[in-house]
Amino acid sequence: MVKATAPGKIYLYGEHSVVYGYPALACAINKRTIVEAQKKNEGITILPKNLSFESVKFKIGGEEGNEIPEKQIKKLDYIRKSIKKIFEIKSEKTGLKLKIRTELPIGGGLGSSASVTVATISALNELYGLNLPRKKISKLAYEVEKEVQGSASPCDTFTSTMGGLTRVEKGKSLEKKKTPKLPIVIGYTQESSNTKQLVEQVKQLKEEYPEIINNLFTSIGEITKRGQKEVQNRDLEKIGELMNINQGILDSIKINNLKLSKLIYAARESGAYGSKITGAGGGGCIIALTDNKEKTANSIKVFGGEPIKTQITNQGVTIE
Amino acid sequence: MVKATAPGKIYLYGEHSVVYGYPALACAINKRTIVEAQKKNEGITILPKNLSFESVKFKIGGEEGNEIPEKQIKKLDYIRKSIKKIFEIKSEKTGLKLKIRTELPIGGGLGSSASVTVATISALNELYGLNLPRKKISKLAYEVEKEVQGSASPCDTFTSTMGGLTRVEKGKSLEKKKTPKLPIVIGYTQESSNTKQLVEQVKQLKEEYPEIINNLFTSIGEITKRGQKEVQNRDLEKIGELMNINQGILDSIKINNLKLSKLIYAARESGAYGSKITGAGGGGCIIALTDNKEKTANSIKVFGGEPIKTQITNQGVTIE
Repeated sequence: MVKATAPGKIYLYGEHSVVYGYPALACAINKRTIVEAQKKNEGITILPKNLSFESVKFKIGGEEGNEIPEKQIKKLDYIRKSIKKIFEIKSEKTGLKLKIRTELPIGGGLGSSASVTVATISALNELYGLNLPRKKISKLAYEVEKEVQGSASPCDTFTSTMGGLTRVEKGKSLEKKKTPKLPIVIGYTQESSNTKQLVEQVKQLKEEYPEIINNLFTSIGEITKRGQKEVQNRDLEKIGELMNINQGILDSIKINNLKLSKLIYAARESGAYGSKITGAGGGGCIIALTDNKEKTANSIKVFGGEPIKTQITNQGVTIE
Repeated sequence: MVKATAPGKIYLYGEHSVVYGYPALACAINKRTIVEAQKKNEGITILPKNLSFESVKFKIGGEEGNEIPEKQIKKLDYIRKSIKKIFEIKSEKTGLKLKIRTELPIGGGLGSSASVTVATISALNELYGLNLPRKKISKLAYEVEKEVQGSASPCDTFTSTMGGLTRVEKGKSLEKKKTPKLPIVIGYTQESSNTKQLVEQVKQLKEEYPEIINNLFTSIGEITKRGQKEVQNRDLEKIGELMNINQGILDSIKINNLKLSKLIYAARESGAYGSKITGAGGGGCIIALTDNKEKTANSIKVFGGEPIKTQITNQGVTIE
């Protein structure tokens, strides 16, 4: 039996503007998806826990089939297509049993799908002794995300595979940077966010007011550059202040709402250095940088959010 | 007896960045300070209502004296110095009785001090038949504000005198533009805001992060330019959308807080086209552009604010 774990991610700075090539900074967080894989005689069994779909069985070769109830197909697709990728590399197939659970909210903008994909591919890589390097795992996982979603950001799967900080910038290849272990409390609104719709909405706003929005995005780019320096200095006050400035711009581009805004101010009033939406917004999660995780978590709870205490981590995918 | 009324003002776009020469748009609102002036034999009596100071009497010539209780001096100063300005022009002095009341919250960032000053000077101008033109009244009122406060924006006294829209921009003289009567609901936090401290705080932020803040201010300048066009088109949706973008930037520069944020989202959830802080922030008021004043006012009330229903007006100082 092989056990692989892969982390989720947050955007410390730069979501949305990254779509237009401005720099962004993603970080792995120590909340993970755990995949336990073992060989068996025949067929493939997937046993999910808290992944919002039921256990399924299908025949080998059914990774792409439609033997599975229609409404489960989408969520299972990340796993089925991950198995298929590995079977394309390893021609001799075996039966498989996969137990999968996650510490990440599904659809909360914390890269749960990337971490499911990376952990599944990594577990099978180990189980079959394929010795694929991390860069290859990240690439395969990105391809799976693209196939399932139509389009994807390579950042999510890269960060989940490598851990640490990922600076994303137009025309530059992704690179892992080491990071101090920053203390983070996430506030989950318990509402999923519709990334595609929100990205489209920002696009329309940018088309309507190009001079206004371009200057805002230039600011976010500057925030990312300065923020990366402050992370490496571990200057919590400045990192937080830059998160807050970034948050205001996310409010400007209409991805904030009352629920998110309350969690953001709840975190700040608890003494957090900074707080902002992470990811697409409109729901999903906020992140807070805080010295006092307990106090910030309580404050988030009082204001109606589900707190998740974590930290930024250098550890990407792990194998036991 | 002469009765003069002078309006308060809101910033539709551009507060704070205007300090650095970026364009801003102020508008007169139909909430007023009312001054009733009459001559009497001797001495000067000031009878304030809801102006947070008590009735006072002093001798002619005591406009600058210290016959008045210390703690009242500051708030009375706008009135005493206004009388002095007029007595400098009109050498033959008379006794005076002034009844003053205002519909504006004091210290709420709606230009209450400017409207007190403009209404007082205008009432005396009429009472003594001095025939000072509006531009002169606006100039005298600005001088009074500068003397009382140490520094002042000529925009407040200009807008209160002239009514309508005032575009404020570095190197250009103030000019009144006509405006459609836009429906506005104000949400007063019932906390005053400390303009001087907030302006200083923004200055420090700008010094720490010049590339970031300068781009944000450039954006606000673009919002003002576009916003002015949309006001003149009476395109309520666009005017509101631009208010919302401006609001996010005000959040970025740290002048927002939980109480203000709640009122802003309360207004938007009631169906307002847009809502934002007006003035220095940190307390004071928000403004909402709305078709349904009753609904927006109720929503503001539910979220802990004091609603004030009004509209943008072309009418500056009036005389009866």
